[in-house]
Amino acid sequence: MHSIDSRLTALNLMLPTPPQPAGQYRATMRSDRLIFLSGQFPFVDGKMAYCGSVGRDLSLEQGWEAARLAALNVLAHLRAITSSWQNFGELVRVDGYVSSAPGFYQQPKVLDGASMLFADILGDRAGHVRTAFAVSQLPLNAAIELAVIANLSY
Amino acid sequence: MHSIDSRLTALNLMLPTPPQPAGQYRATMRSDRLIFLSGQFPFVDGKMAYCGSVGRDLSLEQGWEAARLAALNVLAHLRAITSSWQNFGELVRVDGYVSSAPGFYQQPKVLDGASMLFADILGDRAGHVRTAFAVSQLPLNAAIELAVIANLSY
Amino acid sequence: MHSIDSRLTALNLMLPTPPQPAGQYRATMRSDRLIFLSGQFPFVDGKMAYCGSVGRDLSLEQGWEAARLAALNVLAHLRAITSSWQNFGELVRVDGYVSSAPGFYQQPKVLDGASMLFADILGDRAGHVRTAFAVSQLPLNAAIELAVIANLSY
Repeated sequence: MHSIDSRLTALNLMLPTPPQPAGQYRATMRSDRLIFLSGQFPFVDGKMAYCGSVGRDLSLEQGWEAARLAALNVLAHLRAITSSWQNFGELVRVDGYVSSAPGFYQQPKVLDGASMLFADILGDRAGHVRTAFAVSQLPLNAAIELAVIANLSY
Repeated sequence: MHSIDSRLTALNLMLPTPPQPAGQYRATMRSDRLIFLSGQFPFVDGKMAYCGSVGRDLSLEQGWEAARLAALNVLAHLRAITSSWQNFGELVRVDGYVSSAPGFYQQPKVLDGASMLFADILGDRAGHVRTAFAVSQLPLNAAIELAVIANLSY
Repeated sequence: MHSIDSRLTALNLMLPTPPQPAGQYRATMRSDRLIFLSGQFPFVDGKMAYCGSVGRDLSLEQGWEAARLAALNVLAHLRAITSSWQNFGELVRVDGYVSSAPGFYQQPKVLDGASMLFADILGDRAGHVRTAFAVSQLPLNAAIELAVIANLSY
């Protein structure tokens, strides 16, 4: 078993089926070594698990959990596109959008729910620079959206 | 005639002159095979064709048309930078920003106006992952902004 | 002295120490020739120099200065990751997020504070496509956030 799958098992985590695109586009694209993912949401079994804005409809802890769920969907796509991690390189860039109440400024803490999962599961390949954003709303009234770039190993 | 230009002709579409930068930056950049475009708006003849927010000032259909107009400007830039498609590879990533009224969550449907045009014109090279965003306003009061990454063929 | 450092000296500018990540991620990542930076803010000595929204709490001129300060932090990271510019290529893409009052649409003018600094310091390597965004708020109540992609020379 690949070490990344071992860590998932050790944490009792099952990757979901990668969510399918909601329109006329693809879930993932490769260009040379780079992998681009479509925006990922806290979908669980095809249902948005966390709706609304952090700091009003949702607590910081719920936002953190929403970020973690979106990150699980990111991992599901990465596993699918890398032949079960065989040619996975590193996570390169994560842009995290947090639906936020006016005056809520702790988006980095919310997004740590994603970054900490990536660190736990991907280990020294978790890499990633991060950009945090506060938005007043997201498509489908999601609490979180993650836009991710990764790469393949040489 | 290149097959992409043939499809434009068949759909009776003329590509506009690529809009020029509104500040101290470049319209397009290449890095190895990747092409990066500056944010594109629904400009027609140098005038913003759709202003305001979808779900308040504009209907879903108008937002869809605004996305299609911004996508025409994307195609104009791609044609110019790829020697009339001779070394065009694929569309890689489209980030779509929709100026949205509070409570309007159908950004993916709006952005299909761009993705469907890309599919019609670029065919099997339309590729692209997509990330949809709702924003409360955009520069120049635009209804839509598209940030695009494409690549060159080998 | 490298010509880029000479231009900094001529303009009497000192690059700050590159700001450290505010969570479980990295400040910079490389993937082949591309360099990705985490979101940069107008931090000066670890303190956010400009908070609030342009067009309400801040004037256009203050927003311009905030963009320039964030750009200085971008340059500090680029210098660190390119062995003092020895293998710096070009600035490729800048996404600029401006915390904006409702009805304020001059984000491109604000972001010229960053783009003009890049032009002054990086000269013919300033390149960069740009995408401007208006957001109602940013993490840590920052006035400006810049997300940057650059590349290394061959």
